[in-house]
Order: sequence, then C-alpha cells, then structure tokens
Amino acid sequence: MQNRVLVGIVMGSDSDLETMQETMKILEKFGIGYEVKIMSAHRSPQIVEEYALSAEERGLEVIIAAAGGAAHLPGMIAAWSKLPVIGVPIQTQLGGLDSLLSIVQMPSGVPVATVSVGKGGAKNSAVLAVEILGIKYPELKKKLKLYKEEMAKDVEEKNKKLKAIKSPKI
Amino acid sequence: MQNRVLVGIVMGSDSDLETMQETMKILEKFGIGYEVKIMSAHRSPQIVEEYALSAEERGLEVIIAAAGGAAHLPGMIAAWSKLPVIGVPIQTQLGGLDSLLSIVQMPSGVPVATVSVGKGGAKNSAVLAVEILGIKYPELKKKLKLYKEEMAKDVEEKNKKLKAIKSPKI
Amino acid sequence: MQNRVLVGIVMGSDSDLETMQETMKILEKFGIGYEVKIMSAHRSPQIVEEYALSAEERGLEVIIAAAGGAAHLPGMIAAWSKLPVIGVPIQTQLGGLDSLLSIVQMPSGVPVATVSVGKGGAKNSAVLAVEILGIKYPELKKKLKLYKEEMAKDVEEKNKKLKAIKSPKI
Amino acid sequence: MQNRVLVGIVMGSDSDLETMQETMKILEKFGIGYEVKIMSAHRSPQIVEEYALSAEERGLEVIIAAAGGAAHLPGMIAAWSKLPVIGVPIQTQLGGLDSLLSIVQMPSGVPVATVSVGKGGAKNSAVLAVEILGIKYPELKKKLKLYKEEMAKDVEEKNKKLKAIKSPKI
Amino acid sequence: MQNRVLVGIVMGSDSDLETMQETMKILEKFGIGYEVKIMSAHRSPQIVEEYALSAEERGLEVIIAAAGGAAHLPGMIAAWSKLPVIGVPIQTQLGGLDSLLSIVQMPSGVPVATVSVGKGGAKNSAVLAVEILGIKYPELKKKLKLYKEEMAKDVEEKNKKLKAIKSPKI
Amino acid sequence: MQNRVLVGIVMGSDSDLETMQETMKILEKFGIGYEVKIMSAHRSPQIVEEYALSAEERGLEVIIAAAGGAAHLPGMIAAWSKLPVIGVPIQTQLGGLDSLLSIVQMPSGVPVATVSVGKGGAKNSAVLAVEILGIKYPELKKKLKLYKEEMAKDVEEKNKKLKAIKSPKI
Amino acid sequence: MQNRVLVGIVMGSDSDLETMQETMKILEKFGIGYEVKIMSAHRSPQIVEEYALSAEERGLEVIIAAAGGAAHLPGMIAAWSKLPVIGVPIQTQLGGLDSLLSIVQMPSGVPVATVSVGKGGAKNSAVLAVEILGIKYPELKKKLKLYKEEMAKDVEEKNKKLKAIKSPKI
Amino acid sequence: MQNRVLVGIVMGSDSDLETMQETMKILEKFGIGYEVKIMSAHRSPQIVEEYALSAEERGLEVIIAAAGGAAHLPGMIAAWSKLPVIGVPIQTQLGGLDSLLSIVQMPSGVPVATVSVGKGGAKNSAVLAVEILGIKYPELKKKLKLYKEEMAKDVEEKNKKLKAIKSPKI
Repeated sequence: MQNRVLVGIVMGSDSDLETMQETMKILEKFGIGYEVKIMSAHRSPQIVEEYALSAEERGLEVIIAAAGGAAHLPGMIAAWSKLPVIGVPIQTQLGGLDSLLSIVQMPSGVPVATVSVGKGGAKNSAVLAVEILGIKYPELKKKLKLYKEEMAKDVEEKNKKLKAIKSPKI
Repeated sequence: MQNRVLVGIVMGSDSDLETMQETMKILEKFGIGYEVKIMSAHRSPQIVEEYALSAEERGLEVIIAAAGGAAHLPGMIAAWSKLPVIGVPIQTQLGGLDSLLSIVQMPSGVPVATVSVGKGGAKNSAVLAVEILGIKYPELKKKLKLYKEEMAKDVEEKNKKLKAIKSPKI
Repeated sequence: MQNRVLVGIVMGSDSDLETMQETMKILEKFGIGYEVKIMSAHRSPQIVEEYALSAEERGLEVIIAAAGGAAHLPGMIAAWSKLPVIGVPIQTQLGGLDSLLSIVQMPSGVPVATVSVGKGGAKNSAVLAVEILGIKYPELKKKLKLYKEEMAKDVEEKNKKLKAIKSPKI
Repeated sequence: MQNRVLVGIVMGSDSDLETMQETMKILEKFGIGYEVKIMSAHRSPQIVEEYALSAEERGLEVIIAAAGGAAHLPGMIAAWSKLPVIGVPIQTQLGGLDSLLSIVQMPSGVPVATVSVGKGGAKNSAVLAVEILGIKYPELKKKLKLYKEEMAKDVEEKNKKLKAIKSPKI
Repeated sequence: MQNRVLVGIVMGSDSDLETMQETMKILEKFGIGYEVKIMSAHRSPQIVEEYALSAEERGLEVIIAAAGGAAHLPGMIAAWSKLPVIGVPIQTQLGGLDSLLSIVQMPSGVPVATVSVGKGGAKNSAVLAVEILGIKYPELKKKLKLYKEEMAKDVEEKNKKLKAIKSPKI
Repeated sequence: MQNRVLVGIVMGSDSDLETMQETMKILEKFGIGYEVKIMSAHRSPQIVEEYALSAEERGLEVIIAAAGGAAHLPGMIAAWSKLPVIGVPIQTQLGGLDSLLSIVQMPSGVPVATVSVGKGGAKNSAVLAVEILGIKYPELKKKLKLYKEEMAKDVEEKNKKLKAIKSPKI
Repeated sequence: MQNRVLVGIVMGSDSDLETMQETMKILEKFGIGYEVKIMSAHRSPQIVEEYALSAEERGLEVIIAAAGGAAHLPGMIAAWSKLPVIGVPIQTQLGGLDSLLSIVQMPSGVPVATVSVGKGGAKNSAVLAVEILGIKYPELKKKLKLYKEEMAKDVEEKNKKLKAIKSPKI
Repeated sequence: MQNRVLVGIVMGSDSDLETMQETMKILEKFGIGYEVKIMSAHRSPQIVEEYALSAEERGLEVIIAAAGGAAHLPGMIAAWSKLPVIGVPIQTQLGGLDSLLSIVQMPSGVPVATVSVGKGGAKNSAVLAVEILGIKYPELKKKLKLYKEEMAKDVEEKNKKLKAIKSPKI
C-alpha cells in the first residue's frame, strides 16, 4: 500500500474543491495515496471515459466522485469502470436533494456507494474508502480501530467540557 | 423531410417502451421519420457514446431520450452530441421526482430540454420535436397549426358532451 | 441569421433580470440576435397573448421564458404560440421546486422545454436555443463544436491549476 | 339569488369531471345556480380568456377552476377576471404537489383561493363559494349555519355508532 | 362600506407582523377598514374561539389568518366561523411547506382559501379579500379594475426601463 | 390503574378507525382502560374543546389523537389540555407528509408527541402511552420489559424460520 | 421530585448545544432536575447503550434526545430503554426533513415522541417532559396551568402592543 | 474466497425478505458465500451489537443491511463494526424517502454505502459488494468484466427484439 496511489478523487467542478478537501484530509490521516482530478460527465465525457477505463490498470482501487445537480459523474465512472465508486452529493440550491437522487437511484447492475450530502459526506467518502481498502490491507484495520476509538474519545472530551460549561442545578 | 429519419428515440430499458409509444404516435401523425433504440448510459455507455457521436452525420436532427431513477441517458446523449436533446422522465417508486431532477438539473453548457413525467411527457417530447423541426421545415408549421386547432376543437367537443351529460338546474 | 432577432427572451418580473443576463451573454457569444421583454402571464396577460401570437411573423424562432412560483409565463407563451418555448425556473423561497413543477408538468400537446433552476438554467436556455437554431443554421453547428471543445478545455485548465495548488503526497 | 347562475365551474380536462361532481353536489344542496365548462389554459387559451372576461357581465360572482400538473387554468382565469377565483388542485402521479404549487404560489396582485388536493378540495371549493356569496346573500348564512350544525351532528352520529361497534372493556 | 371594519387580520405571533403589513397596505389602498389581532390557536384557543364566533355580528365579512409551521390558526377560525377565511402560510425553516400543507389540506366542509407563502401571499390575501368584498360592494369592482390596469402599466414601465438599460445588439 | 379509563383515543373521522384499532389492541394487551371518540377539530370544535377541558378531571392521563391532511385534532387537544397528547398522522394522498407536518411542527409551548405515519404509528402511540403511564404505574414497567423481550424473541423466531426457508450455499 | 434528576438530555454533537439550551431553560423554569450529555449513536454506541440501560435505575423518568441528519440517537435510546423518549430533530442542510423522518418513522413497538424541528422543538421537548411527569407529580400540573395562562397572557400582551404600534384607520 | 461466508445480509423485518432475495441471487451468481439474518436495531439491539462486533473475526468482509422507515439498522451496524456496510433503503408509504434519508445522511466518521430504494437497490448492494471484494479477490474482477459485458449484451438483445416488434415507417 505504501507509496501508491490507491484512491482517485474526481469532481465535476473546481467549486467542489472546498468540499472535497475533507476527503483528502482523512485519506492523508490514514496514509493512503490519492490523486485529484476535475472532470465533467457532461463537459468532458471523453476524459471521464478514459479516466474510468484506465483507473484499474493504473493501480487505483477505489474512486470517489463528487457532483451536484443532475450529478452524473459518479454514475458514469461506475458505468465505465469495475472499481467500487463512492458518490458524494454536493449541496445545491435545492439543498442537495437533486444531487442525492441523481447519484443514489442508479439502475440495477451499476451501483454507486452514496454517502451524505456536502462536507460530512466528503469526509465519509474517505472513511468508506478506508473501510473498503481495509479488507485487503490489514494495516488499515488497525488504524480504523484507532480512528473509531479516537472518535469515541472525542465525544467523551466534548462531554467533559460540557460538564464544565453547563452543569444542571442538581 | 420526406422519407428521412429525423428523430432518434432512445430509452434506458424496454420497460419504458409503453410510455414512449406515445412519442411514436405523435411523430407518425406528423409524418416525421424516427428510429427507436434501447441503450443504457450505465450498462452500455459505449453504445450511447457511439450513437450520440454519429447521430448528426446519420441525419438525425433531434434526439428524444427517456430514463428513470438516476436518469443519466438524456444527459449523456447531450454530453456527446450537439443536437438538441429532449428528456422524458419515467415514473418511478418516488413518483418520478428522482427522474425529473436527474434530467433537468444539468450543469451550465449542456442543456436537456425536459418535459413532464410519464406518458404526458412522452407525448409532449414529440410535440416539442415537431416545434423544433418546424423552424426548419415550414410544412410542419402548418401541421402544428392544424394540430393546435384540433386540440382546441377537441376541448370544445368535450364541453358539448358535458352539457349533454350534466346540465345545471338553472 | 445575420442581423436578425431570432430569440425572444421574456420574464415575469424585473427581479429576474440578473438571472437572465446569463442567457443574453451566451446568445451574444454565438452572435444570435435577441430581444428582451418583461411581461406577466398574470398581470399583463394581454401583452403575453399579443407577444406570443405575433412572435412568429416578427421573425422569432425560439422563445425563452423565465418565471418563478406558480410560473405560468412559459406555459402561456406555449399555449399561444407554435414556436419552441424554453422555460427557465427562477429560484424561490421553496428553492425553486414550485417554479420547476409549474413549468415542466405541462399537459399533453403543449410542451415547454424546461431547463434547470436559476442562473445555470438561464445559461442553458441559451445553449439549448443555439442547438435548436443549429438544425437550421449550419454556422451555429460549427460554433457549438468550438464551444463544446472550449468547455472541455476549460475543465482541463482547471484540472491543471488543481495540480499546481493541491498535489497529493505521492 | 334565485334562478341565477352565480358560480362558474371550469376544469382543464373531462377526466377532472368525477372530482368536480363533489363541487356540484354541494352547490345544489345550497340551491346555488352554476354552470360547468371544460376549457384548457394551454389548449384553448382563447376560450379561457373570453370566458373570464365575460364572466362578470354574464352575472357570475365566483369562479371555481380545477386543474392538474402545471395547473394554469385557475391562475389564467384570475389573470383575466376581477372575480374571486377558487382553485382546486387535481391529484397527479406526483400526488398533486405539482398541481397545488402551480395553483397556490401566484405572484403578488393576482391571488387564487386554493383549497385542498382532490375530491375533498372539490367539495370545499363549493363551501368556500357559499361562504363568499354569503356575505351578499343573507339566506346563505342561514343555510351555512344549518350545514355546520349538520356536520357536527354527523360527527356525533358516527361517534354513537362507534360506541355500538367498539366499546372499551372498562 | 365607508367607516366600517370589514376585514379581520389575525396572526399567530408578533413575528408575523412584518409579513402581514403587506396585507394592511393593500387594504388601505382600497379604503377597506380592518383590525389586527395577535392570537394563537394553541396558546390562546379561547380568544380564537371568541373572536371567530363574534366576528360576524361585529360586522366583519372576511377574516385573513396568518400562521407558520403546524399552522392551525386559519383552520380553527374557519371551524368556529361561517365567514370566508383566507390563510397566509408564513415562511419557516422548512421553506414554508409545513405551513402551506397545514393550511390548505383542510377536511371536507371547512375550507380555508389559501394563498402563497410569505409576503407575496400576505399581499394577495388582501387582494383576494377585495375581490370577495367586490361582489357585494360595487365601488370595489371599479377600484379593482384600476388596480389591475395599474399592475399592467407597472409591468409595461419596467419593460421600458429595460429597453433603456439593456438593449440587444440588433 | 385497574378498572379505570386512563387513555382517551380520539380521531377526526370514522375512516381512521381501521388504523386506530392497532392502538386499541396494544392497550388491551397491557390491560389499560381506554375510551374511543370521533370528533373533528374543524367540524365539531366545541366537542373537542369540551373533551379536552374535561379530560383530566374525568381521570384521563394520556390522550392519543389521530388525524390526516391539515391534521389539527392533536394540536387542538394539546391547546385545550395539560395532558400529554400523542399525535398519529393518518396516511393521505400525499403519503401522509401533510398529516405529519401538521401534527409535528407545533409552536413553542404546545407540544404534540408525534409518532410515525399510519398503522405503525397507531401501534406506537399505544406503546408510548404505556411508557408514559409506566413512570407512574410500576406494574406497567414489568409488562414493558416482557413486551420488549417478546419483541426480541419474535425477531429471533423469524430469524430461525429464515434459516429453514433460505439457507446460503455455504 | 425535589432535588432529583428526572430528565436526561442527550445530544449527538456539541453543535446541538445551542438548540438544546431552550430545553434546559424550560426545565429550570419548572424546577425539574436534569442532566446533559453528549453521546453519539454512531461514534460512541457503547456509551449510548450504557446510558440508556442504566437510566431508569439511576432515577431518570424521561429522556430527551436531539440529533440531526440520519438521526439515530433518539431511536437507539428508545431501543435500549423502557422510558419514554422524546426526540428533537436538529436543523440540517436539507432543512431538517432528514432529521425529522429519521426520528419519527420508528418501527412498531419502539416509539419516539417526536417534536418539531430546531429550537421550537427543543423548547417543546421540555414542555412535553413536564406534561408527562405531571401525571405522576401533581405539583407540575399546577405549574403547567400557570404556564399555559402565562402563554395566553403573553399573546394578549403582544396584542396590546400591536394596538399601540399599528392601529387601523377606522 | 472459496467455501467461505464473506458477506453478511441483515434486514430489519421478514417483510424485507422478498426485496433482499435480489441480493442473494447476485451473490450466488458470483459464487460468493453469504449468510442471512433478521435483526432489528430497535427490537433486538443486543443481537445487532453482537453480530456487528463479531462479524470481522467470523470472517465477514462486507455487510449488507436493509431497513425501512427510520432505518437505523445499517447505521448501527456501521457504528459497531469496522467493515464496509452497504445500506439498502426499503420502500415505504412515503415512497422510501424516509428510509433513504435515514440511511444516507450519516454523521462524519461513520459512513454507510447507500444504494437505491427497493429491489433495484437490493440487487445493486450485491454488485457493490462484489466490486469491493474484487479489490482483494482477482477472480471476481474477471467475473465482473463478464457480468458487465453480459449486461451490455442484454441491452443489445432487447434492442434487437425492439426492431422486430416496432419498426418505424421509414
């Protein structure tokens, strides 16, 4: 796993970059190599096709695709590739319901592993990628265990602060 | 216009055929040649690409694409082609709202001319195609005029029947 | 096509003007003559009727109509005219879902070619108009080809910048 | 009020007739003269305009308009007339949410008095018409009082039956 | 009609006041006397009951009720009164869809004349009240005619300004 | 607790009876006395008021109210009473979303304890009533414990049957 | 009831704290002891389980749980406990509809008493808790009576201010 | 991979079994060992916890969880386990939007790989599991390639039948 790019992150527009930096942070935390590309299912379908068709032989094992509105990028990557594709719905003026439905409601035979709308989903796309890679790379399992413990601790920390800030009268 | 296939009708699944026969009936009424194909943006993306890229040189002038759920077919046809693409959202278990949003919420630069959900939309996709072709083929303008008059007459006929069936007491 | 007004842009309110300037920019880019009018299906129905009934003989070939809420303007233009009508749903306090459904869910026989909600839809209404006019005016086909290539290049440019700004560790 | 047609009932399609018979039943119950017409804002806009413009001088005092989907009929009647217009959203494949939003979300200055979706709304459109006419015709106020008492009694009757059918163990 | 309070305006909370000032402005424009009260279907149901039961004998002819969320005020006024009740859905964190459905989806026999969400709806509630009162007070009909002409002129004015600001190249 | 009516079940219409029999079955299972009434917030508001105002002194401790559409019954019971009120949204042509929002989105100070839409919600309204009564009547706590164990066992039973019906190949 | 913690307030994240302070204010007003904890159904499920399983024996009688998005905290508390659980849906980028449906649509046998979205719901969760506790602690009934009278007075106060600020012309 | 149970399929109710048989069929087609269990996040949370905590050591590599309504099962499995969890939203009386949002809108750090609503989603959950397992087991990659080719061929077959059934006039 060391020194290899295992995860491809693609997004439909450079305006999605801020959201998708949440994905990158998590992958870096887990020491997973990734690459980032902007490509559009609608404006550069040829690039999407080439990217998806070559992804596997270039060593990618998971693709994370973010898009908004009539979000076709995750679905088209899934159409052209046999790798697991994780879809991140970007928030829109309709709240992101359009992005979510356009990504999740895929036809039989061509799934996209959809996560939640926006930055939380971007973060979760990375965690899901780690879980998927974890079935092949045992070192990730250990890190996931630590990550989960850290999350639980983090909640507990907040709980303690809470007691300091706001304590009930009784 | 005579003896030429001007409109390509594509749909994601053979279950969409019943809906799309409404499109064919209208095109036949206007004497417009069409072809019908089943192809899937997700299951046969290569066919979609080839179809869309060759559509113009094969003489097509408008493409009507129907799909349901994460309905990518109209959008992908639009991505690969410079022809006007009309999208018909197929009804689904979510009422068709998923299909509608996946077709209409296209990104800047790659429009799909979206019509209503289901059979009414299928019919309207054909009328819209006639209107579009009408700016090039004057004979269609005349037929459209007659069609519109016929619709108005049809409403008037129903009105008359209504008077017969149900007449107010005064 | 030179020196002629081919596209009529109408909108229900002057508050829609900012959105619809996206339409004008694209039409100017393609050298297509247009006219802009404010008219309301509800507040000035007579004007809408006269405009729609005279549009064809005044040389218009496509009408783009924008409206929000119970958005009747595109539908009423379509009712009175035989030209292809493109509808742009304006964003509202309900996100624009009301505008979208009021424009797209037209009855059989009277279609409106609906595009996405807001500024993206405004831009796309112009691109769709160009595609429609392109079946009659071959010079537009060439420009569309260049436009599509430009879009693809633009995506590629953003991609390159991305590499400079944010490069993965591996 | 006697022997005069005070309420105009219009609907976009003969398929709306079953729903709108609920309206007629209530008006008959209150002895209010009505007329029924099928006309389409999109398919016969000229008829709609003429109907709305002449409604007042023909003695109508309230217009009830039913439509489904991109339901423009109530709004267009309201645009052409100064009479109060009651809109009945017809149920559709999207549940009727499209009809409801297309009728209720009217722009400033041109209201439609919207009632609930489907048969219940059809019935209520008549009751609302009675309430409106009641401010001019005092005899309707008395009938309304009786109607309301009857409704309350009807609920009480059901309550009694309930006791017979299903009595709690204690 | 002179010097009499014909319209009761009630609202569930003082936070609705800003919205409902649109209603007052229109009623003042038409010279219609009104009264304004804050009362809550849930927090002061007794006041609502008393208000609704006494409204008619105090000379009110139309009641306009505004509320948000599980908006029961218009419906409860309608339950206790025989006057026509106009409901204004106040905007909420769910966009106002909750207010709209809670007001419009009334059961058979007890209608609320629902207008659009927010300030536009507030304005329209007044116009609807004028139209309703117009069937009894002929002087309002004349004012309505002028108001409608003024609206149409206003649209035309905006149209002229538009020509000055933004003129197409051709 | 023995031989006393502790729970009042009210519903807006006799068509809700089938749904609410789920509530009765559960209360009977727990040996809790209940009474059932049909009353309408809109058609018999006086009955609702009297019922809610007298509920406490008549010994009721929890009220379960079911309604559909612009479902005001639970909210009005809550307005007139100080008892905990549980609201059951009845399914409608809009799926029950209107009932749900009309019941749950109550203003500050007047809560309705809302459960899920339809029969499942009816059942849960009874379980919630048991949990609420359980803080006063210890014998219900024991029954709840058994009920929860029974539910878990029931799931386990289904699991066993599953193994019999459908066993994986490995 | 004196000097005892009767209500447990739990929330999924410290970002929910601002919302839930509305709950605390009301409980303090009624003199009800409470405790506040942050715990996550997803990030610290063990803590949730332990908390819910021990709640009853630690003397809690009602649990209020707030969460947003795929809001599992109220449901999981209800799964592990026999106490009545009140769920507060936190507002999200989808308006809070996701939180609401995730909390209210519980399966048969495991209810969550759901209140409205956001701060109003937080406040109402406390009032509902008071009503529930009121069936056991008679002193709360008296306070509830005063609280309800205070609310009604508060509405009346606003009404009076309204008369001062804005008085109709007649 | 041979002779091992790699995929755990869990569902909240035996009524989900019909839907989830689509999952089993696909896994069998790919020769992947699976186990099926009914367990409820709400009715048997202890079983869910034990299942999720032991899944990894028992050799499972992917868990597919189906649930409807306030669908907590996938999320709770994800909370207790470090394996990738695929969530299948079951159709409900709200169309399945409640199930979808309850599964997909997970908080940061605890993703569920969500697929489409109903049977199509059940099928896709299996294909996604195959894609995920494919990064570890190369033989699955080959089968996936064949499966994708088969899907494309299947579309082509339908296309051919179409030509036979319905051929355009030209």
